[in-house]
Amino acid sequence: MDELRKNINSIISISDKDWAILKPMFVYKAIKKNEFFLLEGKHSNTVFYVIKGAFRVFTVVDGEERDWHFHFEGNWGSDYESFLTNRPSRFSIQAMEDAEILTLSRDSMHALYNTDAKFERIGRIIAEQLFLFARNRGMDFLLQNPEDRYLKLIKEYPNIFNRVPLYHIASYLGIKGPSLSRIRRRLSEK
Amino acid sequence: MDELRKNINSIISISDKDWAILKPMFVYKAIKKNEFFLLEGKHSNTVFYVIKGAFRVFTVVDGEERDWHFHFEGNWGSDYESFLTNRPSRFSIQAMEDAEILTLSRDSMHALYNTDAKFERIGRIIAEQLFLFARNRGMDFLLQNPEDRYLKLIKEYPNIFNRVPLYHIASYLGIKGPSLSRIRRRLSEK
Repeated sequence: MDELRKNINSIISISDKDWAILKPMFVYKAIKKNEFFLLEGKHSNTVFYVIKGAFRVFTVVDGEERDWHFHFEGNWGSDYESFLTNRPSRFSIQAMEDAEILTLSRDSMHALYNTDAKFERIGRIIAEQLFLFARNRGMDFLLQNPEDRYLKLIKEYPNIFNRVPLYHIASYLGIKGPSLSRIRRRLSEK
Repeated sequence: MDELRKNINSIISISDKDWAILKPMFVYKAIKKNEFFLLEGKHSNTVFYVIKGAFRVFTVVDGEERDWHFHFEGNWGSDYESFLTNRPSRFSIQAMEDAEILTLSRDSMHALYNTDAKFERIGRIIAEQLFLFARNRGMDFLLQNPEDRYLKLIKEYPNIFNRVPLYHIASYLGIKGPSLSRIRRRLSEK
């Protein structure tokens, strides 16, 4: 909970009084490795904060899984599109390690928005940050080649190869496993 | 201005009093065909609302222009990433037709946020909508083939071929002009 408060404080400074309102709205949940937080086609009514563990956000295209996003400690997760639009989720979210999270429901979030402009601001800033992530992700596909995307990923998450299986990383980059191996070999020879 | 008020009202209902605060913050601007609203590398300190005209948002990769987005009447435009982060824009924004817009500066927007929670909410909802667009754009590259992307584009903007040159449309889809011609021929033969 302290970590969460710090995280929210980095978005906007919150008083003890604000925290007393916020804190009881979060629900603790432990998730075992390989368990699903969300299944594609279901509704996503909560966002979650990762205390511990690693998650992948993926969808299935022509029988093949495509990884869209990874979440680690200190990240906020959700199918935010389903959360916002109330439409079925286009992604599944699965734990890749034993994990612990704090969840916050849409109803709680809307109640917060109506309590104080400060919470409305938190909602705005979370949406802005998600916008920046989604836009970068889209631009990377339009503007970068797989090698550039690979270099960006390991710069952002230097430990990713210790925590995420290779085939999920390849899928995230939009390439096949052998192409990823070739990129890694080529770069290690440089 | 009436159109703009209707547009904002579709996000959140605003009173005559709110409108009296909002209205004077917008600045009218006419832009000639081919003129730039924003140049890559410059800072984007305003968002704009399109009264009339068509814009393209593009960047240059290896000497080649890549179109990221189009804006028409009733759309909000900006390099929102540069606007939010105060970093140089990674895009240029150019009018493809004689255009009229209403601009709103970052300073005005922040002043509004501090005036009333209602304006904070407008900011949140605009960010959420931009998030949904950016995410869909990214997912389309990860999940769809060029033909699917083409079909989606003409469903969303049935008139686009009357207003946007073919090579910009090809660029938006992430393909070359001849590939776009092949897709169109194949679909017209079906």
